[in-house]
Amino acid sequence: MVKPLFQRLALIGLGLIGSSIAHAVQRKQLAGHITGYAPSAETRARAKTLGFCDSLYDTPQAAVEGADLVILCAPVGALGDITRTLAPALASGAIISDVGSVKASVIRDMAPFIPEGVHFVPAHPVAGTEESGPDAGFAELFDGRWCILTPTPTSDVEAVQHLKTFWIECGAMVEVMEPDHHDLVLAITSHVPHLIAYNIVGTAARLGVVTNSEVTKYAAGGFRDFTRIASSDPVMWRDIFLNNRTAVLDMLDRFQNDMDHLKQAIERSDGKALQDLFTSTRNIRQRIIEAGQESPEPDFARKSTHTKTTTGDS
Amino acid sequence: MVKPLFQRLALIGLGLIGSSIAHAVQRKQLAGHITGYAPSAETRARAKTLGFCDSLYDTPQAAVEGADLVILCAPVGALGDITRTLAPALASGAIISDVGSVKASVIRDMAPFIPEGVHFVPAHPVAGTEESGPDAGFAELFDGRWCILTPTPTSDVEAVQHLKTFWIECGAMVEVMEPDHHDLVLAITSHVPHLIAYNIVGTAARLGVVTNSEVTKYAAGGFRDFTRIASSDPVMWRDIFLNNRTAVLDMLDRFQNDMDHLKQAIERSDGKALQDLFTSTRNIRQRIIEAGQESPEPDFARKSTHTKTTTGDS
Repeated sequence: MVKPLFQRLALIGLGLIGSSIAHAVQRKQLAGHITGYAPSAETRARAKTLGFCDSLYDTPQAAVEGADLVILCAPVGALGDITRTLAPALASGAIISDVGSVKASVIRDMAPFIPEGVHFVPAHPVAGTEESGPDAGFAELFDGRWCILTPTPTSDVEAVQHLKTFWIECGAMVEVMEPDHHDLVLAITSHVPHLIAYNIVGTAARLGVVTNSEVTKYAAGGFRDFTRIASSDPVMWRDIFLNNRTAVLDMLDRFQNDMDHLKQAIERSDGKALQDLFTSTRNIRQRIIEAGQESPEPDFARKSTHTKTTTGDS
Repeated sequence: MVKPLFQRLALIGLGLIGSSIAHAVQRKQLAGHITGYAPSAETRARAKTLGFCDSLYDTPQAAVEGADLVILCAPVGALGDITRTLAPALASGAIISDVGSVKASVIRDMAPFIPEGVHFVPAHPVAGTEESGPDAGFAELFDGRWCILTPTPTSDVEAVQHLKTFWIECGAMVEVMEPDHHDLVLAITSHVPHLIAYNIVGTAARLGVVTNSEVTKYAAGGFRDFTRIASSDPVMWRDIFLNNRTAVLDMLDRFQNDMDHLKQAIERSDGKALQDLFTSTRNIRQRIIEAGQESPEPDFARKSTHTKTTTGDS
């Protein structure tokens, strides 16, 4: 048997990402033992039933004891407090990491509590579904997705390399980035898209002139896709917006500025401006499909996937 | 054999919707004969190869001759001209309909050209994928989706009933609505969502500070869903925005007003306001799933759908 990458992995937080890491680690036996902690007794019980941890603890301190890799899988706003709580129990030489969608604030909040001799390597696997909780996880979540590491100037080079290997073995591709740049990239590729999805769903819900029942019935015209994104975990997303405020507001300003131009094009019946934009946006999607970050199949919200059989030409 | 609902169906336009109607009609033999017309010789040739029309014509007049049902499946901006062109060839007693995503402007543009003795019944099947063209169609597109009829005050009651039966046999559920109200409902459930998707993709493409290559790599964080919507047919969508301007701009103003509030909540770190909104938007999705207009499976852009096997509890 191959020696596992880590002897003892501690997962602090057992939602979609925490449980998916556990499944991915089990799939390739990347850790000798997986310990788990979640603040809710219900989640711990569910994790026990699902069997993706070898042992479960009701304090983070107990969960991290003796662990050589600790991954915090909690909303980014909670990471400072969690780190302060569990820091005294961290083993010397351990790597501590996270999975937060914001990196500068996470480093600001966690770094002060990291004890001497413990290696802090912030990380963000760019993967997910709109579901949350311990039942939502699965081993394939990270396959072919990018995991971004944002080491600090004091991060140990070997620890960074070790964590990189870990994420590659979990199925991911790994990129190293400056924390501030990470936060800008994610603001446009993830945070602002979520914000406008939450917002349009809210707008639709509050309309009197169109009833909620009508919004529901005719959601197949495009609206349903936004509700999917807008059903992601509320606390996780609250924390993301509070902690990546500058980049989010910057990107949102650009979005609103562009929207004003688009609005003016509609107002002055500038069909060419509209058609030019709508044509250019097709190309980006093609590149994303070619990069393996999206499936090319058309989506029409069917349970059983429709398979198009092209007759003729054969 | 059951008598078909119509002896001769003419499809003017053979893209995603036109070809899907043909497939749905063939599935249940709803018409004795299907004729087709498309302005592009290439599309007509492709339709011939795919075999979803019984005969193809290179003018709309020839295609509608002798037809008892004519459906215009073209961008809404083109419907007035098409109707004027083919009107002299329409058979007395025929029903002429459309599939446009805007109804008031379509009635304004088409009604003046409808000859005495021909029944005009505007319609809009709320169904689609992001694909377009004759290869994109399939028989199941309308199954379980709503088709909205917006009869005019002079629409023949029997013709409306006949077209309603046709759409039900194509798999759809049918609702009757005032044209202006239809345009408001679709502005919020379809048109504004498409507009903001096109816009965010445009914003991302024009950023210098985050490269297009980065936008592509990290699209799994949410952005990819917007690119799907923003890859819909450019001419179709240009025409929708030009022809539903008032309702779209009204709904867009509400969206932008709500966005300003959300922005202020972020600026003043009002976590409660954010969390409250993000929690409420989950409920709408649940209702859409219960209404059968969306699949409950989580989406993570995999070609082969991942099946979650829940262990335990059994």
